Amino acid sequence: MEMAMSETSTQPRTTEAAAYTPTDRTVPTRSKERAAYDRELVHAILDEGYVCHLGFVRDGAPVVLPTLYARVGERLYVHGSTGSRPLRMTGQADPGLAVCLTVTHVDGLVLARSAFHHSINYRSVVVHGVARQVTDPEERRLALDALVDHVVPGRAADSRPANAKELAATAVISLDLDEVSAKVRGGGPNDEPEDLSLPHWTGVVPLSKGYGTPVPADDLAPGIGLPDYLTAL
Amino acid sequence: MEMAMSETSTQPRTTEAAAYTPTDRTVPTRSKERAAYDRELVHAILDEGYVCHLGFVRDGAPVVLPTLYARVGERLYVHGSTGSRPLRMTGQADPGLAVCLTVTHVDGLVLARSAFHHSINYRSVVVHGVARQVTDPEERRLALDALVDHVVPGRAADSRPANAKELAATAVISLDLDEVSAKVRGGGPNDEPEDLSLPHWTGVVPLSKGYGTPVPADDLAPGIGLPDYLTAL
Repeated sequence: MEMAMSETSTQPRTTEAAAYTPTDRTVPTRSKERAAYDRELVHAILDEGYVCHLGFVRDGAPVVLPTLYARVGERLYVHGSTGSRPLRMTGQADPGLAVCLTVTHVDGLVLARSAFHHSINYRSVVVHGVARQVTDPEERRLALDALVDHVVPGRAADSRPANAKELAATAVISLDLDEVSAKVRGGGPNDEPEDLSLPHWTGVVPLSKGYGTPVPADDLAPGIGLPDYLTAL
Repeated sequence: MEMAMSETSTQPRTTEAAAYTPTDRTVPTRSKERAAYDRELVHAILDEGYVCHLGFVRDGAPVVLPTLYARVGERLYVHGSTGSRPLRMTGQADPGLAVCLTVTHVDGLVLARSAFHHSINYRSVVVHGVARQVTDPEERRLALDALVDHVVPGRAADSRPANAKELAATAVISLDLDEVSAKVRGGGPNDEPEDLSLPHWTGVVPLSKGYGTPVPADDLAPGIGLPDYLTAL
């Protein structure tokens, strides 16, 4: 199938204005036409996701964990308990933690006449870099607000900010958007010419995402209505 | 926020029948009550996903790529071009490629009164192990069918199987479900008792997933109707 693992080659692409500079790690070996470096596209894909998959190396082996993230300009933030190992690995004294942060949206199922050309329509962003712990109190506050607002825009201002105890328990790490690529597959199946007369249905099944009706907490006080930023969803 | 990065400790849990045996790598340091090892739960989470995030180490740095996968019993399959680096790294002569394969479903947005307790309802599975290239022709065929049927059950039988040229271009790797854990967060916010009187709306915004109306390919011959396995979606 077409959405198969592909990795990067050593052939750099030409760069464009308003785009990230491709590197060895961000140019795919396959389906090069699907790779993109446009900042606006990258930002849009990142901003639409709720969870990223963050990879790092522990004892020589890869670890991939789903986690919340937020983007502020050209920087991503991830947070976690100060006791968790990946967060400790990004401490001030360290050179930082090599990470790969990936966000993927699955948009449709692509049914070709041949098994080989079955695929998924998707949009993904892969960020390579070094994650560093954020120690500046102002940036930490900004990052934590961004993490809440990434879940629901406008929510940070309508919740109790972290207190000193909570701040002390929370590690925030940052990852700059520098070595970044997007990959997008859209449209219909790419069948072989000799398969066009086969009797199989062919096309795309779109996948939809949406919001259900908000469910108030059991202990929500009467009289607290749904805020505008939720009805807007 | 609660859905923050957490990593594994060295405290094993007791095992149960019909469950994976916890290891150092599959016991989280935080939110231990969310970790689960039940095979049925793990299988259900895996079978519901379309794309996994596969992590491996390249030149000492982590790489996380989205890719299709399929489960057959206690084994996962991933495929790709024979030319792609991670696939080549799993060659017969090699000891295999250390990987971490993660599948995540985001089920809802959890809005607490405090920023700190904001979270996501989710279900994830993390598989650690060594990926090996599948060379047995029968198992390769089985895996490729499973990859198509994972996208749409019943589709493999209604498409042209891979021919010799396509088979030669396709590498299939397997990963046994051995060192596996699930993590599940459900329900409402966990606010602090002292926050209960705050005036912020609190609850869960469910996220829904669904299928859109199938879009036939432009070159679909007239008279080929939608197959039952698609109307059943």
